Amino acid sequence: MGSIQERALKLHKELVGKLEVISKAELDSADDLSLLYTPGVAEPCKVIAENPDAAFDYTGRGNMVAVVSDGTAVLGLGDIGPLAALPVMEGKCVLFKKFGGVNAFPICLNTKDVDEIVRVVKALEPSFGGINLEDISAPRCFEIEARLKKETNIPIFHDDQHGTAIVVLAALINALKVVNKKIDEIKLVLNGAGSAGIAITKLLLQAGLKNSIMVDRAGMLCTGEPWMNPAQKEMAELTNHAKLKGSLADALVGADVFIGVSAPGVLNGKMVATMNSGSIIFAMANPTPEIFPEEALGAGAAVVGTGRSDYPNQVNNVLVFPGIFRGALDVRAKDITEEMKLVAAHAIAGIISAEELNAEYIIPKVLDPRVAAIVAAAVAEAAIKSGNSRLYRDL
Amino acid sequence: MGSIQERALKLHKELVGKLEVISKAELDSADDLSLLYTPGVAEPCKVIAENPDAAFDYTGRGNMVAVVSDGTAVLGLGDIGPLAALPVMEGKCVLFKKFGGVNAFPICLNTKDVDEIVRVVKALEPSFGGINLEDISAPRCFEIEARLKKETNIPIFHDDQHGTAIVVLAALINALKVVNKKIDEIKLVLNGAGSAGIAITKLLLQAGLKNSIMVDRAGMLCTGEPWMNPAQKEMAELTNHAKLKGSLADALVGADVFIGVSAPGVLNGKMVATMNSGSIIFAMANPTPEIFPEEALGAGAAVVGTGRSDYPNQVNNVLVFPGIFRGALDVRAKDITEEMKLVAAHAIAGIISAEELNAEYIIPKVLDPRVAAIVAAAVAEAAIKSGNSRLYRDL
Repeated sequence: MGSIQERALKLHKELVGKLEVISKAELDSADDLSLLYTPGVAEPCKVIAENPDAAFDYTGRGNMVAVVSDGTAVLGLGDIGPLAALPVMEGKCVLFKKFGGVNAFPICLNTKDVDEIVRVVKALEPSFGGINLEDISAPRCFEIEARLKKETNIPIFHDDQHGTAIVVLAALINALKVVNKKIDEIKLVLNGAGSAGIAITKLLLQAGLKNSIMVDRAGMLCTGEPWMNPAQKEMAELTNHAKLKGSLADALVGADVFIGVSAPGVLNGKMVATMNSGSIIFAMANPTPEIFPEEALGAGAAVVGTGRSDYPNQVNNVLVFPGIFRGALDVRAKDITEEMKLVAAHAIAGIISAEELNAEYIIPKVLDPRVAAIVAAAVAEAAIKSGNSRLYRDL
Repeated sequence: MGSIQERALKLHKELVGKLEVISKAELDSADDLSLLYTPGVAEPCKVIAENPDAAFDYTGRGNMVAVVSDGTAVLGLGDIGPLAALPVMEGKCVLFKKFGGVNAFPICLNTKDVDEIVRVVKALEPSFGGINLEDISAPRCFEIEARLKKETNIPIFHDDQHGTAIVVLAALINALKVVNKKIDEIKLVLNGAGSAGIAITKLLLQAGLKNSIMVDRAGMLCTGEPWMNPAQKEMAELTNHAKLKGSLADALVGADVFIGVSAPGVLNGKMVATMNSGSIIFAMANPTPEIFPEEALGAGAAVVGTGRSDYPNQVNNVLVFPGIFRGALDVRAKDITEEMKLVAAHAIAGIISAEELNAEYIIPKVLDPRVAAIVAAAVAEAAIKSGNSRLYRDL
């Protein structure tokens, strides 16, 4: 069989691209041609020219998402460029279709300039019903997303931030049930104050978290620390109310939850042993986690999750983005709001019944076919309630 | 059944988009996921990061074309905008796939600015193996195409110009055989000095045409005429060597060929009667031609073609672009050259044997399944010969 690496390379060479663009209609006769193309095609054009919203009825725009990357932060590989990022973006599109029934197309951009990326994506808006930003490095990803959310009328979603945040919240909701703790009573330490870490912390704060500390390579984020970037400064205001300084090990003493979106092996059993009883560890560095589950459990952790498929509790974005976009597109949402993210997390957590729930099953399996549809329904409802749907304005 | 218009609108509403993006690979297991996505997908990424040309081996880029429009010159509808242009671009993508096996994706741009369009398409280059420009108004289309040809490394092809020019040359090659005339001996009058008319004339000059006059609303293009735009001024230098001035009717006296890419009904039987015997009329205004075939034939024309499917000799771009791109992509061409266009025209003309050729069959039917493959083979060979192929550098 060979290693995954060898087999993946072979498969990609056989496929020569993982995607195909096909016609939904038969084209076998001159009559077909006159309906799908000239002269018949002029009719839907005229209808849309009169009423732009009709593009959702007469074209595929409403079920088409662009997976947009500049190739600056690809997997663990870093800034490998847009061309080398294409296999990942194609793969993401495969997942969109498989799990969400969403048509998705990979757009790898030959520029790293924030203004240029914003301009390009805005120019592409007529072709797409939503934009999934992917593997764009911080802090550029923050500005790109914020500007696009403001300057376009379609959902913009940086999956590395928000997909990760939503799936972590889902896992945390269920893990807290297992250890019988409440989110507003725990002390949580998040290691890795990059774009994912910041997005996770922000969403957990929305969900009721009160006591949290973020840690980066230089130590705890704390108001006044000189080494923080602007995004970290903002987070220091929202967390670490006791204004503690020090290392990850210092932060973890007496903590209930560790969330790692950082680097292999930065956590060890000694540090876990200083946490409160019933501790929860999500060690999501990939493929080598901050701590392996065996060691964390051996040091007293009650629930452990990672990003890996070969351990229980795989905390993976694929549980999120197909359903989020499916729901947003279904109601022609103009945005993906905080409320939509929160309900998505609760929907994922809710898939596991009280009877099924245990320390080794806090989050659905990535191939669980129920997930996307359940997330989509919750997200669509939230979009409608928040007045964010083009289809149902008055509910 | 209803009219074509009613049926086309109904079909578009049923389809809600004519395209679908599907996965070429099965995704049914955690193992599939690890090969198509993380961690396996990192392998082709690494290979491409080392060698950019490997993107043609490990991604779909090499068989993916963007159909790019700003919606400024859509069918006969004019500047209806990018959103209303989307049904046409989707239809074009259907034809690319059906006839050429080319994956094509509609990119409708929310800008009319030349610089911006050039910037956006350049930014999209890593995702595509070629760019088909479509329904972009003159004179912007000239600059956009010229700059993109210079500033990118993939084939750029404005189909409204060059697809039309190639299919007209193909039809003319065979029509001249029918009337037993040679291209370097005829007098040709082209009416409609816009982007298509200019591209047709340029290609015919390449193919050996010596004596030609272009006519626009204000009369014959002639050096010194004050009303001409820059593109027309250039054409005046290349045509009308006798420096004649006057109307279309004046130009047609003693002409052998009329080519119309202009407006309904501008030609009549009287004018045709002033042409040489064995005259050829391509009246391609759509859907209502410059003259209907009955009238042209009644006035003595020997061969008549139109853009319509309900008359013999439909002169239609769909015979061109799928095969041109198929051939260019097959050899990973960096450009579409004049030589590639010329051989495409000869390949289309050559599909009709000497025995089959007659005044009512000078050009293959648009649904003829042989065309694209034959065009592709000729185009690929020409690309290789001209050193324009990434795959075969040394032939």
